Amino acid sequence: MSSITRKANLKELADSIGAEFCGEPLTTISAIATLERAQKNELSFFANRKYYQCLLVTKASIVILHPDDQAVCPTNTILSPEPYLAYAKIATWLTQSNKQQSKIASTAIISNTVMMGNNTIIADHVTIESGCKIGNNVTIHAGCVLSDSVTIGDDTTLYPNVSIYSGVTLGSECIIHSGVVIGSDGFGIANEQGKWIKVPQLGSVIIGNRVEIGANTTIDRGAIDNTIIEDGVKLDNQIQVAHNVHIGENTVIAGCVGIAGSSTIGKSCAIGGGAGILGHLTIADGVHITATSLVTKSIHKTGIYSSGTPLQESSLWHKNFVRFKQLDKIARRVTKLEKI
Amino acid sequence: MSSITRKANLKELADSIGAEFCGEPLTTISAIATLERAQKNELSFFANRKYYQCLLVTKASIVILHPDDQAVCPTNTILSPEPYLAYAKIATWLTQSNKQQSKIASTAIISNTVMMGNNTIIADHVTIESGCKIGNNVTIHAGCVLSDSVTIGDDTTLYPNVSIYSGVTLGSECIIHSGVVIGSDGFGIANEQGKWIKVPQLGSVIIGNRVEIGANTTIDRGAIDNTIIEDGVKLDNQIQVAHNVHIGENTVIAGCVGIAGSSTIGKSCAIGGGAGILGHLTIADGVHITATSLVTKSIHKTGIYSSGTPLQESSLWHKNFVRFKQLDKIARRVTKLEKI
Amino acid sequence: MSSITRKANLKELADSIGAEFCGEPLTTISAIATLERAQKNELSFFANRKYYQCLLVTKASIVILHPDDQAVCPTNTILSPEPYLAYAKIATWLTQSNKQQSKIASTAIISNTVMMGNNTIIADHVTIESGCKIGNNVTIHAGCVLSDSVTIGDDTTLYPNVSIYSGVTLGSECIIHSGVVIGSDGFGIANEQGKWIKVPQLGSVIIGNRVEIGANTTIDRGAIDNTIIEDGVKLDNQIQVAHNVHIGENTVIAGCVGIAGSSTIGKSCAIGGGAGILGHLTIADGVHITATSLVTKSIHKTGIYSSGTPLQESSLWHKNFVRFKQLDKIARRVTKLEKI
Repeated sequence: MSSITRKANLKELADSIGAEFCGEPLTTISAIATLERAQKNELSFFANRKYYQCLLVTKASIVILHPDDQAVCPTNTILSPEPYLAYAKIATWLTQSNKQQSKIASTAIISNTVMMGNNTIIADHVTIESGCKIGNNVTIHAGCVLSDSVTIGDDTTLYPNVSIYSGVTLGSECIIHSGVVIGSDGFGIANEQGKWIKVPQLGSVIIGNRVEIGANTTIDRGAIDNTIIEDGVKLDNQIQVAHNVHIGENTVIAGCVGIAGSSTIGKSCAIGGGAGILGHLTIADGVHITATSLVTKSIHKTGIYSSGTPLQESSLWHKNFVRFKQLDKIARRVTKLEKI
Repeated sequence: MSSITRKANLKELADSIGAEFCGEPLTTISAIATLERAQKNELSFFANRKYYQCLLVTKASIVILHPDDQAVCPTNTILSPEPYLAYAKIATWLTQSNKQQSKIASTAIISNTVMMGNNTIIADHVTIESGCKIGNNVTIHAGCVLSDSVTIGDDTTLYPNVSIYSGVTLGSECIIHSGVVIGSDGFGIANEQGKWIKVPQLGSVIIGNRVEIGANTTIDRGAIDNTIIEDGVKLDNQIQVAHNVHIGENTVIAGCVGIAGSSTIGKSCAIGGGAGILGHLTIADGVHITATSLVTKSIHKTGIYSSGTPLQESSLWHKNFVRFKQLDKIARRVTKLEKI
Repeated sequence: MSSITRKANLKELADSIGAEFCGEPLTTISAIATLERAQKNELSFFANRKYYQCLLVTKASIVILHPDDQAVCPTNTILSPEPYLAYAKIATWLTQSNKQQSKIASTAIISNTVMMGNNTIIADHVTIESGCKIGNNVTIHAGCVLSDSVTIGDDTTLYPNVSIYSGVTLGSECIIHSGVVIGSDGFGIANEQGKWIKVPQLGSVIIGNRVEIGANTTIDRGAIDNTIIEDGVKLDNQIQVAHNVHIGENTVIAGCVGIAGSSTIGKSCAIGGGAGILGHLTIADGVHITATSLVTKSIHKTGIYSSGTPLQESSLWHKNFVRFKQLDKIARRVTKLEKI
């Protein structure tokens, strides 16, 4: 349950997204809650059939749902063929804060060569080095560090303790969560008689518009060319993006994924949590990779791909685990039996 | 080997945990060391049979061990049926520092609406925003950022560069290590004709008492309800806890585990390093998951569960790896042979 | 493509690494670029056969390559049996910046008991606590925190927002990237009737010379003895190194690897991205582990080791996935058939 920043009634809410509604148009709501916990004057939504039993008995005053589920809902409804999307829009509208007024904290250290947009908020203990360009309506929370020559587009927000290396470019309407590191050196090393020599990482990172990057995700700068994240990409927490990776428009990647150097991921892909993608691969547009799969070859065809083995009680699993070592031999024995 | 903050003799040490001892009661110790490296006047313990040979020849002046191993130990002993636990208590007692006196660094920025407890230490470059409540005996190390309305219970410590988002609650006696992010937005997105719309993350994070959170672990805020970590939970480094996860009392989770959204983990579970837990699952109390297993279904019964395949020399492994693609066909061929 | 900090001609570049060259000795270059994108007056290299077609048509003015490929290259060349290593050295030479002059930011908080070397750069909002020793030519970027008694060797660089706990030692010529945490408590807990008691972590972390540590990597302090990273080790991003791990000289570890407590990794090993290494294991010198493998036993022999299953389209994969649960039974059925 959460507080909202503006009051609205059923008709106003439905109108805000151009949707139809059923029920008393003047019903007002004062909070958002789940179907299970919602009380009178609270708004909820039904988008996952797992919660069907909760829908039947919800005490919410308004529920956003698919027209097909209208009949079983005990309360007022807003109808949408895509109720989760409708909820996202209404919740955004209800919780929008009035943009705070510009404020530059006295403890922020900003080089006098920085080009600063209008209406920016720069919080305490922020460091912005020489040659940075900060767009309009940008918010940079406490403890962030922008090294020299970083560019930040309009309406972008950096949460506390983000680190951005020299020369990185971020687009507009991006959201960068705490602990994110962008532009660190790629892992480039060359062997000289058993010792490793560092290969200078001379590229940068270019991040498009409307990109969200989750907490503690790391994105390395390119070795020569740039690492590129296109418009509309959504990255969850603790993702590792190596040098010269290219991620196409509107691709979404769940937490803890690692992408090795120089791999190209297409547009509108979905990569499940904990997956690994080896280096120098190409993944076509629209590919789905399920959680913790390892991608060892390029994928040229849209589709859903997986690897891995099932969870079992350890005693049973261990028997199968051991047999995996014999799998090729077992296959050969079957072939031999077939020839008898 | 490490310095200790108070001197004690064999009798005092044994008495401090109510244990029996063998040997010269006035033997004093001035440091803690492993069985292998310990010298005269040093304390050690024997809790892992792997180090049995070291026990037989240790030069330590005092060893904490199980009564069954008393006979083979060449030196003074403190006897406990749980020697590792006894060591933990004695080492804590020996290394306790006198609580430093309250100190608020001049470079810390603390909103004048913050309610500050007694005897707090707030280090340099810390930011504490409006409406925060800080308990008694709290220590907040350099570079931490507490956004507005954060609550921190008594005797809790935050190590350097921790980021806590708006509205998060931490209990008493918690230890939060560097780089931890608590309360970042959950990964909530809705698709609108190929583009992704952000779903506002309106819940918060509630963390109980005596919770320890390892370096660079991330815990997202709930979408509507809260993400919850109950009392006594111990999280290692680089764990990802997604929105609306609920972790039950006294559960321990090793490093690099990822837990997807809305999953509920029971009390007193143990999750091995690198494991992945998919979303919307329920895991019963007392379940053990071994390292790097992937949990794809709810687990309703206490027990030990695993997935994965064994490590082999790559040339051998590759033969079996390829055969995995044929596993269903091999099984069908065996069935066919059986019918002949 | 990237700017360079000094101009040089073909002969000077070849001489700088003692290599031979072919072509016009006075050809100058003003930038470094990939074979594919290079233009006139730009330097490139050919070290990966994947880019052979690009070599044949490159517009670069100078290409570093193996003598065997000299004949097909359409432009001036620098010849080396190890062209990637030669490129690393030349690129380093071309992009070296003149060491900035010493500068201590006015917002840096440095205890008056710190021993500070010559020619150091300490950026804004840095905290350096009592008893630290900082070598010559050290650079510490904004937002870093060094707790008490940390030692940093000569010529070492810390990027923004690094956190180093009490008593940690770093060698010379190290590079520590943003978000790294060194010296956090190891995950030591002892069970007392269902509750977990913290075991004090009394060791420290000792890091050798020429070690590079990638963004958001975490290295825990030892329980009693130290965690040790030897000279020349290269760690990528988001690696977790648990307490009392020992990593031998010149070993390289790719991103997202987790190493559990007290494991010892030999010299000159290579660990692929996302691999997991269980605790208390020993891995011999020169071992290679492929990406996302799980190491469950000690490895006593140099070689390449792997685990895991192949990626497939999910519908096919699922059939094999299910069969894995029957693998032991299938093997027994084959044995039975063979006995008929």
